[in-house]
Amino acid sequence: MQIEFPPLQNDTILRAARGEVTSHVPVWIMRQAGRYLPEYRALRATEEFFTVVRTPELATEITLQPIERFPLDAAIIFSDILVVPQAMGLEVQMIKGRGPVFPEPLAHPDDLKRLVEPDVKKELGYVYDALTLTRKTLNGRVPLIGFCGAPWTLMAYMIEGGGSKTFSKSKSWLFKYPKDSHSLLQAITDVLIDYVIAQVDSGAQLIQVFDSWAGLLSPRAFNEFALPYLKQIATALERERPEVPKTVFAKGAHYALESLSEAGYNVVGLDWTMDPRQARERVQGKVALQGNMDPCMLYAPPEAIRQEVKSILQQFGEGGYIANLGHGMHPDHDPEHARVFIESVHEFSQKEHMSL
Amino acid sequence: MQIEFPPLQNDTILRAARGEVTSHVPVWIMRQAGRYLPEYRALRATEEFFTVVRTPELATEITLQPIERFPLDAAIIFSDILVVPQAMGLEVQMIKGRGPVFPEPLAHPDDLKRLVEPDVKKELGYVYDALTLTRKTLNGRVPLIGFCGAPWTLMAYMIEGGGSKTFSKSKSWLFKYPKDSHSLLQAITDVLIDYVIAQVDSGAQLIQVFDSWAGLLSPRAFNEFALPYLKQIATALERERPEVPKTVFAKGAHYALESLSEAGYNVVGLDWTMDPRQARERVQGKVALQGNMDPCMLYAPPEAIRQEVKSILQQFGEGGYIANLGHGMHPDHDPEHARVFIESVHEFSQKEHMSL
Repeated sequence: MQIEFPPLQNDTILRAARGEVTSHVPVWIMRQAGRYLPEYRALRATEEFFTVVRTPELATEITLQPIERFPLDAAIIFSDILVVPQAMGLEVQMIKGRGPVFPEPLAHPDDLKRLVEPDVKKELGYVYDALTLTRKTLNGRVPLIGFCGAPWTLMAYMIEGGGSKTFSKSKSWLFKYPKDSHSLLQAITDVLIDYVIAQVDSGAQLIQVFDSWAGLLSPRAFNEFALPYLKQIATALERERPEVPKTVFAKGAHYALESLSEAGYNVVGLDWTMDPRQARERVQGKVALQGNMDPCMLYAPPEAIRQEVKSILQQFGEGGYIANLGHGMHPDHDPEHARVFIESVHEFSQKEHMSL
Repeated sequence: MQIEFPPLQNDTILRAARGEVTSHVPVWIMRQAGRYLPEYRALRATEEFFTVVRTPELATEITLQPIERFPLDAAIIFSDILVVPQAMGLEVQMIKGRGPVFPEPLAHPDDLKRLVEPDVKKELGYVYDALTLTRKTLNGRVPLIGFCGAPWTLMAYMIEGGGSKTFSKSKSWLFKYPKDSHSLLQAITDVLIDYVIAQVDSGAQLIQVFDSWAGLLSPRAFNEFALPYLKQIATALERERPEVPKTVFAKGAHYALESLSEAGYNVVGLDWTMDPRQARERVQGKVALQGNMDPCMLYAPPEAIRQEVKSILQQFGEGGYIANLGHGMHPDHDPEHARVFIESVHEFSQKEHMSL
């Protein structure tokens, strides 16, 4: 049974994801709902992180906070990539000032026995409910983005147990236990495929896969342990829900741009170390691009932000482009500087288009 | 007055740095003298980090530890890039398990007044003494590498006060106070130039500049705030001490390979995210290359390490190549796996050469 949603009024990001030239460049910001917003901090003062994630009303409220404030072209559901390892049986705690921590990470291939094959409909139902409620509450203003972590990134967290400088535990799995690593990656991928399809059925209008730790891998390791699973997800989504565009953001995987442009995604997200013009050449029009202003530019004075936006828009050129930062907002960013970023993307891209 | 040193018996690394084909591929490892060696831990059990750095006899002993153990083609003086900020008036403490910490980092451009113009001959005399004693003790077995941190990397530490996930304080200086940032970078560069020339005069036979945090910068920021100062150092060394080859290792600056190959250095170091064949094409024979096995490969079984070394040697091809890891040793690495890496570089590169 398909859920009925209000008609969409601004589909700019969906058309840009398909490579179209749009009347303005659509813009959203990774972690646009987050700690830099006073209204987010106010809500989080009384509610635990995972309580918010698991409570559709709260997740909807936070998802909409930046939409109420700024003229963004997309909302992204407030959730976390680690809900999947949770559903697979690993406990995850959010420790203030430290980020997510797994009290009992996977220490050895024997621990794979501890993982369960989740009933994603049931275990992750709160995400689907949050998507449906948010999409209804958005009332067609902008599309709603759903997301998941990439298999390698989730594996890295599940083994490392938290953040790390070198991620040497998870990386050493790849080289010490390649077979078990592939089993784990496949198990995660199988869950993710069900998960993102169900997200679409619940209201997600675009899916972004975050491979946040791709940059830790050598090109050879990425090709063996990350890329094949990213492809599986794109292929399954394309087969099952072809109407929904797909974005992959493999932070730090500068070496993989060509292969990511042929992995079945519509959009490839770029971090700020990528040169936009070179990126356009390397992907040869096979995908739209998303990104990539250095988040630290938001510490600059407004006029410097505007100049940077202008330059980035010129470098990416027209069509098949979604403006974003090269990574997420920082907690100490000034919301008004986020506004300058968002508004100048609109201002300059409209001007550019009109001047043609 | 020039110091007299014993004649050099193995100059392979110096010739490879000049682009020559050598009888075997020379190899050294970043952080080859370090915590993964039991003899290092034994010495450090009773001596503070900066006491070792400041005591030539101890620095020499630690520098030679890996040389006694393994058939390495170079020694690198045991020291720290942060001795330069120390000499410029900032206190640095080495905190166990946390790394270096500046109790009073530069918080605002006004703090630049706190920096002093050091008499490098006096303030950093302990480094020169350590180089001279080490070079004499090495007795010509292998060349001795001297090093310094790059201006941007030192600036980042001086402002951040320690490690950081985003380095947002130091990066926001670049965008908020570009003029003051340039003043600071120039002041650091001036000290570094005197420092590396004095290192050569004290016994260093190759100089490596570590731009450990280059990867945090966008290409534009790198070109404005990192590259010009790296060039100044290379130019000054080439003018003053042309006999000594120079290496630059800008970790994460994948986008800068072309410009680094034209920055006045003989060798460009690569981290493990760089594809060796592509790197060779991009530098077009202008520089020798150094690197770049993923340090995490040392967790793999010996046979997997050997296969990886073989593959890397094939990808780099002959001449103008120095084998190394793509970053430093980890404290939990097995010394015997470092040996497998070093010995298989020699074994396979000799075979390769003989089979021609």
